[in-house]
Amino acid sequence: MKITDIIEKKKNNKALSQSEIEFFINGVTDNSVADYQTAALLMAICINGMNAEETFFLTKAMIDSGDVIDTSFAGGIVCDKHSTGGVSDTVTPIVVPALAAAGLKVIKMSGRGLSHTGGTIDKMESISGFKAQLTEAEIKEAVSKSGAVIIEQSKSLAPADKILYGLRDVTATVDSIPLIASSIMSKKLASGSDIILLDVKYGSGAFMKTAKQALELAKCMVGIGTSYGKKCAALITSMQQPLTESIGCNLEMQSAVNVLRGEKNDLYTLSKEICARIFILAGLFLNTKTAFAAFDNLMQSGAVLQKFNQIIQNQGGDTSSLNRLKPAFNHKEIKSDSGGYVVQINAEAVGKAVATLGGGRIKKHDVIDKSAGIKLKIRINDYINTGDTVATLYCDDGAKIADAESILKDFYKLSPQRAKEHKLIYAYVDGLGATVKK
Amino acid sequence: MKITDIIEKKKNNKALSQSEIEFFINGVTDNSVADYQTAALLMAICINGMNAEETFFLTKAMIDSGDVIDTSFAGGIVCDKHSTGGVSDTVTPIVVPALAAAGLKVIKMSGRGLSHTGGTIDKMESISGFKAQLTEAEIKEAVSKSGAVIIEQSKSLAPADKILYGLRDVTATVDSIPLIASSIMSKKLASGSDIILLDVKYGSGAFMKTAKQALELAKCMVGIGTSYGKKCAALITSMQQPLTESIGCNLEMQSAVNVLRGEKNDLYTLSKEICARIFILAGLFLNTKTAFAAFDNLMQSGAVLQKFNQIIQNQGGDTSSLNRLKPAFNHKEIKSDSGGYVVQINAEAVGKAVATLGGGRIKKHDVIDKSAGIKLKIRINDYINTGDTVATLYCDDGAKIADAESILKDFYKLSPQRAKEHKLIYAYVDGLGATVKK
Repeated sequence: MKITDIIEKKKNNKALSQSEIEFFINGVTDNSVADYQTAALLMAICINGMNAEETFFLTKAMIDSGDVIDTSFAGGIVCDKHSTGGVSDTVTPIVVPALAAAGLKVIKMSGRGLSHTGGTIDKMESISGFKAQLTEAEIKEAVSKSGAVIIEQSKSLAPADKILYGLRDVTATVDSIPLIASSIMSKKLASGSDIILLDVKYGSGAFMKTAKQALELAKCMVGIGTSYGKKCAALITSMQQPLTESIGCNLEMQSAVNVLRGEKNDLYTLSKEICARIFILAGLFLNTKTAFAAFDNLMQSGAVLQKFNQIIQNQGGDTSSLNRLKPAFNHKEIKSDSGGYVVQINAEAVGKAVATLGGGRIKKHDVIDKSAGIKLKIRINDYINTGDTVATLYCDDGAKIADAESILKDFYKLSPQRAKEHKLIYAYVDGLGATVKK
Repeated sequence: MKITDIIEKKKNNKALSQSEIEFFINGVTDNSVADYQTAALLMAICINGMNAEETFFLTKAMIDSGDVIDTSFAGGIVCDKHSTGGVSDTVTPIVVPALAAAGLKVIKMSGRGLSHTGGTIDKMESISGFKAQLTEAEIKEAVSKSGAVIIEQSKSLAPADKILYGLRDVTATVDSIPLIASSIMSKKLASGSDIILLDVKYGSGAFMKTAKQALELAKCMVGIGTSYGKKCAALITSMQQPLTESIGCNLEMQSAVNVLRGEKNDLYTLSKEICARIFILAGLFLNTKTAFAAFDNLMQSGAVLQKFNQIIQNQGGDTSSLNRLKPAFNHKEIKSDSGGYVVQINAEAVGKAVATLGGGRIKKHDVIDKSAGIKLKIRINDYINTGDTVATLYCDDGAKIADAESILKDFYKLSPQRAKEHKLIYAYVDGLGATVKK
């Protein structure tokens, strides 16, 4: 088999066979296929696409390029959730203990953030002493004690994906549904969970700008997971505005703790939706009504907060530090120079402003400033008056605040009329199809 | 400007601007655009194409990446011909002296062969003492004496093309009309001639398998040359069978000498067509009838042979060695095991067999065995009987002869009926359009 013949075939818009896809991915992994050959094939895939079968074979070959985690030690139904990424998307510290509180097992592998704000692991490390890199023995012990761990994703999962991912960024081959879907799913499936609930974001703060694109990606990923023999489903949720008012590591962890302690907001609603869907996939409840109620009960009883504290302690964290989560002391308020209904918030601009404040990584090895962040005072359809504060920027470096301020110029739009009702949960997709919420 | 934005644009099937194409080619030349980025863009061009304007800008940017030869020292109309390559295509030793004999100037830059048989320079070096690398002073002296030189193409022409060419081969991005056309034309136009006559081959022994593809390529190249302000035209000619019966360096040079000494065959006919078209482009004659007659006269008078001998002597060659051009002594005849009309000859298989005998390069730095080669005893529509010799293989290494024999298995097809008439010259294309021969 020759890699040039495989590239040629995809260039001519023909479907690749499983053995051709395996040959390609093995060659990427062992470096016998050169970067420029991979780039040429990625571009051909980007333009000519891949059918569902090819996308599954690609995902499977990438899974097989590395380790597949054996989670059978957990002794129960192992579940996982994955978000395609947005601004102030901090559901993990709520969802993971809630699932564990319901008796499910969670070996949550998360990443660090690149672009915009920090990733889940960066946020968890706002808790003093929290360790995200555990040994196998430590993982087993924590899961047997509390049913859940939140750890940094192993580098040995889907190494071929890592190579493709790096190349895609520099060859303008990022926006391809089969490539995005196989990249995400290869790592998720290699993590060894029985149930995978995907949260596919759309809107100004997400990679997918429209609900339609998000739906297409969701269907593709659910198809892959189902073909691999897993219970897999997806929610399509809005990232038209940041999920909560707090953006930045300390601020986001603080808002998660607030929800764990009783606050109700979009973060609560989304966490509930995700957990309820997983409860149903796991067979704990038959419909969303009972599953939602179960989540509310677990939260209200304090069982989820207790589980959260256990998880932190299992991983060396100091739970008392949760009361000391604070943004930087130095801050600046941005005031509105007009009045009206907030009809649009540029979540991407907010994310970029946080990165500029030091709260995210611009380059891979940047150190995140946990105390940098933004508190938004507006949400879509709030009414504001001239002179109202719309955001507070936190950072010890005044120059960075000035830079972030310029990024935030015109980051929201006002109108005399309210915007059409904002829907946080747009649709649900499982192996049987998609249900768009009314 | 960012290369990823340019790749993205072509991926989305949009036309690139001149400045974007220049940015790309400058980046390729100074190495600021990585190989994998070039490969991704080449693939996007391959699939989505380029319009005539983009193709011209690409060619111009590649010309500007290196030297452009100033041929004004020649003191006359400088002309050039270029063949897209075929098997036993040895017109240069006839065409160049014929043009010079007609008073035109020729600074013919040729290449060495890769794949199949040797290139023009390899064949010229069958003449003992012949030097293809001349200093600028030597070139000027030779041209002022005899009006023509045949030299190895300078490495300083279109260096960007060299990089693209190398990458295309290993990324399955070879068969793109804009990429092929710009690659050929960048080197031709940088060579500084006033008139360029292209010989675009089609058929089993050519890169373009059909006349239609060849016509498309020819129109594209003529368009580029004309836009660059040159007199440029193209012939579409058949490579359904090797141009002559002799394939291999010594054998081909011998068959060129035979034509110069009076033999009439397809090599004569094609050389005449090429020269006549250039005569007309140069304004020496008004139509093919008078131009053809002029070529016949120059050949018959011995003026072309005399010019050929001068060119060889100017470049250190020993003209007496022309009488000693011989294939290897060791040889093997292949006989036909059936009878009928020859309706098909696989010219590509013949080329590959010659390469296997050592008469071509498999890898870039292979040394060509000038004495290796094949003499075909058949041409399309010959009638042969069982037991007739169809080819003789020449090589001092018996093992190579056996390998070549296996490549030549079934290289021709016989039929009780003749094939439809074989047309050597299929069409002529100039700035005004294409004329397909009746």
